[in-house]
Amino acid sequence: MSAPLARRLLAELVGTTLLVTVVVGSGVAAQQLSPGDIGLQLLENSMATMFGLGVLILVFGPVSGAHFNPVVSAVDWLLGRRAGTGLSGRDVLAYALAQCVGAVLGAMLANVMFELAVIQISVKARSGGGHWIGEIVATAGLIALIFALARTGRAGLSAGAVGAYIGAAYWFTSSTSFANPAVTIGRIFSNTFAGIAPTSAPGFVVAQVIGAGLGTALVLTLYPDVGRAASAVVMPHDTEQLSSFDPPQPAGQRRQS
Amino acid sequence: MSAPLARRLLAELVGTTLLVTVVVGSGVAAQQLSPGDIGLQLLENSMATMFGLGVLILVFGPVSGAHFNPVVSAVDWLLGRRAGTGLSGRDVLAYALAQCVGAVLGAMLANVMFELAVIQISVKARSGGGHWIGEIVATAGLIALIFALARTGRAGLSAGAVGAYIGAAYWFTSSTSFANPAVTIGRIFSNTFAGIAPTSAPGFVVAQVIGAGLGTALVLTLYPDVGRAASAVVMPHDTEQLSSFDPPQPAGQRRQS
Amino acid sequence: MSAPLARRLLAELVGTTLLVTVVVGSGVAAQQLSPGDIGLQLLENSMATMFGLGVLILVFGPVSGAHFNPVVSAVDWLLGRRAGTGLSGRDVLAYALAQCVGAVLGAMLANVMFELAVIQISVKARSGGGHWIGEIVATAGLIALIFALARTGRAGLSAGAVGAYIGAAYWFTSSTSFANPAVTIGRIFSNTFAGIAPTSAPGFVVAQVIGAGLGTALVLTLYPDVGRAASAVVMPHDTEQLSSFDPPQPAGQRRQS
Amino acid sequence: MSAPLARRLLAELVGTTLLVTVVVGSGVAAQQLSPGDIGLQLLENSMATMFGLGVLILVFGPVSGAHFNPVVSAVDWLLGRRAGTGLSGRDVLAYALAQCVGAVLGAMLANVMFELAVIQISVKARSGGGHWIGEIVATAGLIALIFALARTGRAGLSAGAVGAYIGAAYWFTSSTSFANPAVTIGRIFSNTFAGIAPTSAPGFVVAQVIGAGLGTALVLTLYPDVGRAASAVVMPHDTEQLSSFDPPQPAGQRRQS
Repeated sequence: MSAPLARRLLAELVGTTLLVTVVVGSGVAAQQLSPGDIGLQLLENSMATMFGLGVLILVFGPVSGAHFNPVVSAVDWLLGRRAGTGLSGRDVLAYALAQCVGAVLGAMLANVMFELAVIQISVKARSGGGHWIGEIVATAGLIALIFALARTGRAGLSAGAVGAYIGAAYWFTSSTSFANPAVTIGRIFSNTFAGIAPTSAPGFVVAQVIGAGLGTALVLTLYPDVGRAASAVVMPHDTEQLSSFDPPQPAGQRRQS
Repeated sequence: MSAPLARRLLAELVGTTLLVTVVVGSGVAAQQLSPGDIGLQLLENSMATMFGLGVLILVFGPVSGAHFNPVVSAVDWLLGRRAGTGLSGRDVLAYALAQCVGAVLGAMLANVMFELAVIQISVKARSGGGHWIGEIVATAGLIALIFALARTGRAGLSAGAVGAYIGAAYWFTSSTSFANPAVTIGRIFSNTFAGIAPTSAPGFVVAQVIGAGLGTALVLTLYPDVGRAASAVVMPHDTEQLSSFDPPQPAGQRRQS
Repeated sequence: MSAPLARRLLAELVGTTLLVTVVVGSGVAAQQLSPGDIGLQLLENSMATMFGLGVLILVFGPVSGAHFNPVVSAVDWLLGRRAGTGLSGRDVLAYALAQCVGAVLGAMLANVMFELAVIQISVKARSGGGHWIGEIVATAGLIALIFALARTGRAGLSAGAVGAYIGAAYWFTSSTSFANPAVTIGRIFSNTFAGIAPTSAPGFVVAQVIGAGLGTALVLTLYPDVGRAASAVVMPHDTEQLSSFDPPQPAGQRRQS
Repeated sequence: MSAPLARRLLAELVGTTLLVTVVVGSGVAAQQLSPGDIGLQLLENSMATMFGLGVLILVFGPVSGAHFNPVVSAVDWLLGRRAGTGLSGRDVLAYALAQCVGAVLGAMLANVMFELAVIQISVKARSGGGHWIGEIVATAGLIALIFALARTGRAGLSAGAVGAYIGAAYWFTSSTSFANPAVTIGRIFSNTFAGIAPTSAPGFVVAQVIGAGLGTALVLTLYPDVGRAASAVVMPHDTEQLSSFDPPQPAGQRRQS
């Protein structure tokens, strides 16, 4: 009852493109406009990301779920195997590929908009135990949030909640919360405030996978029973659920049905 | 089943007036109060615009849809032709005229409030490929958001979502996301932080029209099927939909009806 | 079907006390902690007020409507006369008295918390045509928002919307949007960032009354027909409407009723 | 009909851990990145806490109620005795223990992430009448908010509202609104921006208990009648209420049931 795979992949690709454009573009603007205070730059960058990510989930969610993140798609498959819902293994690979391609295109689009070199590689090292623990915490929290909402039938709150989570996690983690392997790869291609050196990316991705595992374990412990809406990851996106978006009909019509 | 055209045009005129007053007025305040950091000025300006725009959509939406933007009205007409809903071509012209007049009045109102020359022309050049690509991206995203919500019956989320989108797009686009030909014209009449030189305006408007086309194509690809609520652009505003705003009646009353 | 008058007056008094404590207290904190940039102070002050006001409407709304503002109560009476709802003239006077007393107590509470002189009088002059036009615009917008929501059955959105409006209006008006005679009186008693000299207060109050009139005229023009929920100013607060806050019952129970 | 006690205690423990990680972690980041302006640090810290706390309530609320705060649990017991709902006395002690342990772990997790000494004791004195009155006001407001929402069947709004309240109370109280004995204990273990010296903690806790009593008295005065949803503190978390999270079923299914 989902949209055709091609359409869902387009949604994941364009959505992840725009997500990285938001992250990188607002980082460039912040760096250029607030040169005197790095914290202020991060505040500007985190607020723009928070609101932009929430909006992107609203736009693309009903088509593909608005995962924009390979570990979200993978956990959707993993938990869906138990519930008989979720993505197939083959779909996860296709989603992940679309997300990674989109992320790289997103960095390039930001580079073009801000008249920087279209293709560039970050030299910003981000490594060390603190950063890796930061990514583990950030990703565990993201997975816990998304699947706690899905398993309790509240996926309709995901747009605001996932945005708010990332907005906070920019600050409370030491790594500024990438929490997303595709976005990590995309941010390699921006030698600016939001970039990450290629040599630092693998450590981040490993930490994200570990964090996803921890988050999954937490969700299974807190919410062992699967509700009817468990396939709504990140956003409800099958046809039956979509119809629940429709505003209630006026009393007259309801009586007739 | 909509409100009479005159009342809808009044809503578009006053709403666009106040939108430009919010954009220009908060820009003047930010420039005066935070002279040391342009990024902080933009943060203040973007937060005020985000919350102000969301509120204006709530106030005027049920009357006219709260378009405040000629390209939104035009796409409503274009997509409505297929669905048998939306504005007529004549209404689009009337909407656009009301929006442009309102935008100019809004700049003047801000000028008067802040005791600046009532009529003034910006000298702030905003041009170049990066800015134009920024406007294309900004407008494509705005159109995609508004019509994705409308076509999935979620137009009730527009107030918060459109506000959040613009708040983010101030930052992630290189042009600070005008994304609106009427507002672009209005901002010519403010020689302040938020202004745009008359010579730069045509390039912005052309980019916005291109962006609107791209956004429309994206919406038609992602959401080819038109839902029952497709005419609710930006906000539900025909009588039948308005009745769905009413809070659910207590159980006793519902049983009787 | 409302709560007893004494309880409603207590809600208005305590609510307005806390509103002024939020405005003045956050202004003092901002002034002390960010001495180098007045814009940053206003950003901190406006964000705290926005979120604090929204919360106060949630807490006190179901008891008294959470007016906290004599012009809101007066317009509720004025429009309610036509619809056969709203406050009586005597209630408006009692509401206004409770609001003014609460506002003064709120300034004193902020003074005590921040270890300033409990009773103090502001010397901050706020006058001139620009400021007065600012208050007219600010109050017209506030009245338009509150009564547009009420007349379309959307008063449940008031908490977030009124908070967001004030957060934006701090910035887009030249007067930082007092928009409230009771709060204006309360702010006389704080010789800090948020204060207003007694000699400036009357001009502000006159402008607010004019603005309330303009806002009322706008609402009557845009929404001439009174909906069933028109008495829900600012928040639904009669017994029947309150029951609509209850979450929907599970399907099993609904079937039985 | 609640989740088993062990699972609820796990939710309280992990939730409070992450809450203190958010508070302390974002404080460390703010202090490091914005060394020039303490107000800007507090803005960054308060925004991260506001959004992070709201998200944590969404994640853990359906399991344990997401109290994260011994005085919230205690008032839930106190008011529940009258209504025949709420925690038992023994549960309150278990909740409080889990919350305090979690809070200490949360400070340690933040220390580890930011590569500071894992165990450290704050030397930041926070005392004096102004601070204590600040904590009384902060906690009274928090209790009033949580139980006003619960007693009117609006606990589903708690995530956003409690987050917004704390975000504002960081600013309008002189004590930056700890409002939570467990979090106060946890913040002893961070010698950074967000810390509190052990000698200052008892005064804060006493003030918080007094504030909780005042807040309870206010709630009982404003909302003497207990609604059906009164046990939903902070978030609905018994099985029957949880089912109300499910999105409405499509018309076809509803007709069949």
